[in-house]
Order: sequence, then structure tokens, then C-alpha cells
Amino acid sequence: MTERGRFITVEGLEGAGKTTCLRAIEQMLEEAGIERPLFTREPGGTPFGEALRGALLDPQYSGLSAEAEALTVFAARAEHLAQVIHPALATGRWVVSDRFTDATYAYQGGGRGLGDERIAVLEQWVHGGFVPDRTLLLDVDPSVGRSRVASRGSGEDRFEQEQDPFFLAARAAYARRAAAEPARFRCIDANRPEDDVARQARAALADLLPARSAS
Amino acid sequence: MTERGRFITVEGLEGAGKTTCLRAIEQMLEEAGIERPLFTREPGGTPFGEALRGALLDPQYSGLSAEAEALTVFAARAEHLAQVIHPALATGRWVVSDRFTDATYAYQGGGRGLGDERIAVLEQWVHGGFVPDRTLLLDVDPSVGRSRVASRGSGEDRFEQEQDPFFLAARAAYARRAAAEPARFRCIDANRPEDDVARQARAALADLLPARSAS
Repeated sequence: MTERGRFITVEGLEGAGKTTCLRAIEQMLEEAGIERPLFTREPGGTPFGEALRGALLDPQYSGLSAEAEALTVFAARAEHLAQVIHPALATGRWVVSDRFTDATYAYQGGGRGLGDERIAVLEQWVHGGFVPDRTLLLDVDPSVGRSRVASRGSGEDRFEQEQDPFFLAARAAYARRAAAEPARFRCIDANRPEDDVARQARAALADLLPARSAS
Repeated sequence: MTERGRFITVEGLEGAGKTTCLRAIEQMLEEAGIERPLFTREPGGTPFGEALRGALLDPQYSGLSAEAEALTVFAARAEHLAQVIHPALATGRWVVSDRFTDATYAYQGGGRGLGDERIAVLEQWVHGGFVPDRTLLLDVDPSVGRSRVASRGSGEDRFEQEQDPFFLAARAAYARRAAAEPARFRCIDANRPEDDVARQARAALADLLPARSAS
């Protein structure tokens, strides 16, 4: 029987350095001999989910209600779980997702003010007790993240256009999640330079990797 | 203080004759002196909701999970309520919607097999105890509805492509809804010719109209 793969999520505000972190994880899994890890993202990860992502990020919907936003995120997630995450884990593959349900607690629960309890109802509806094996939280000061996003020079999406109160509430919600589940979360100081964030990411996953014979 | 408007919904399978029924309602409200009734539809009714509708009906997503489908429908509905339905009712306008939450019980609860209880959780999350003042259920034999859709000659959307077991389950779920809430529902035999359906629709709303002075 195939052992179920590991499910790793990477969380953080805009400009936290998730891409750098994901590259470090990819390299680490390759070095550890983990075959065909699946890298995916939320919202999105499926054709239907990417269509919803396009609508969610589109600045034309600037007045979107918090409820519609949360439900759309979970709709994309339900499809992601059904078509991608569960099937991959079942065949023994590792799955590494750029954001998952903790982001909904942060952005819609915290940033939009829906609160933890309303998000928890949808979480339970969509994936019950299923949680990541490990979540790396890239904790960044919103002003640091914002300056990184600005330096990319691309247009801002609907979330990147938000202001400090939104991101401070999202950051606080992320911190509450991490404090409540210390066994699952690893907090990474993402205000640090890229190399240091990559080093912290590797350290945060080391105990999950199979022991390798010394050679 | 402005009296809240009435909220009327029209429900039924594909080809049930909802368009004919809506035209009859429009004419009836005009004759009754109801000013600026708002006619809308689900899924959709807002720019964001229409974008979700486009994804929901697109045949390219033929394997969409039932959970993602139900959550997407409710996401569009949350936006519809926040931006359109509640504001219009609050200013005293009547709102007539081509489908609402009963359709989710029928299609996703019945047709897709999610069941009433799971739909009820989302209904509660999105609109609590808010229900239409009157719901006209156009009950049609799926084979009759199918032949009407075919005679339109347009391409089939993702729901119209479904087969009899799906529509029979949806019809049964609609019937259960109507039986459980007889004060809200009026069942219309939609196997009958258009004129007769229009006559039944008018009779089903007559008691909601303001009494007019004989003249």
C-alpha cells in the first residue's frame, strides 16, 4: 500500500517571499529524493479554480462582499481538493500549496472581518478535519511586503490594492492560527533577506523528510 | 417609512417555461401599478455573479465537483443579495428572481446528491432566515422540458447536458420543498401550453397585490 504523501502549505501576506520559499522547498525535496512533488496554489490549482481566481483578483470587483469572496475561495478549494490535492496525496505524492485555508482565516476572516467562526463553518463543510501536515507562515511587516510588491512593477490585483488596516488584521489572524496550532505551524521571519528566509524554510521541514543513509 | 417590497421567485427545470411566466408577472405588476419592479436571475444578477455563472454553465468544466458547484452558486447569491436584492427591497421595490435557493436544493442537493442538509448549512450561512414571499414552482416533466430546450436550437449549457436521472432527482427535490412550505409555494402545471401557464402564474400572485379601488 502506498504511503500517503505529505501536504505542505506556505502562507503569508503579499510580498512575504512565498516564491523564494517555494523554490527552496522544491530544491530541498529534490535533494531528499522525494519524487514528483506537486506544487500548486490557491485560489486556483484547477481550470475551474483559476477561472474563479481571475474573478477574485480582478480590480473591477472592488466592492465585492466579504461573503461572496469567502464562498468563492472555498469553491475553488473544493475543486482543488477533489481534483488535485486528495488524488495526489493518495498516490503518495507530496503536495506543496502556495496558500490554503489559513489564508481564508487571515484575509476574509481577519482582513474582511468575517471572523474565525464563520470561516470555520465553511472549512468544516469543505474539508472537515483535513489539515496540512506542516504550514510555513512567512510573517512579514505589511510595509516591507508592500515595498517588495511595488518593486515588481506589475499592476496591483484587488488584494494588493488593500491598505494597512486590512493587512494588519490579516497578519494578526495568521498569528492567531499559528499560536493555536504550534505542532503544525512554523513561523518564519520574512522581513529578513531572501537567503535567510530560504534557510528558515528548509529548517522548518527537515523533520518531515525521510532519514537518508549516510554515504 | 417605506414599506419593504415583495420578493418573488420563479423556479423550475430547464424548459419549464420560466420566461413566459416572468413576462406574465411583469405585465401583471404593471397593471397593478407596482412601480419599477426589479427582474433578476440566478446564478448571476451582478457583474461578479454573472462571471461565476459563465464558469458554472461552461461545458468545459463537465467534471466539476458538486461541492464546488454549490459553493459557487452561493457565492453568486451572496453578492446578489448584498448588492441587488436587499437594497431594492429596502427601498420598497418588488424583486422577481428567475431562480433562487430552492434551485440549489433541487440541482445540487437533489440532482448532484449533496442532500438537503448540506445545502441548508450554506443557506443559513448566506441568508439565514430570509426567504421569498412567494415562490412559483413550474413543475414540468423533464422530457417535456427537454424537448422545449431542443426546439430553441441554441447550444446546450453544462446543466442542459445532464440526463434524466439528474432532472428527475431535481424535480423530486423541488416537490419536497413545495410540500414542506405550502404557504410560500404555488405549484404550476408547466406541462400545459404557454397561455395556461401564464394564467396560473397570475392567479398564484393575485393575493399579494394591493387592493385597487373599483373604477
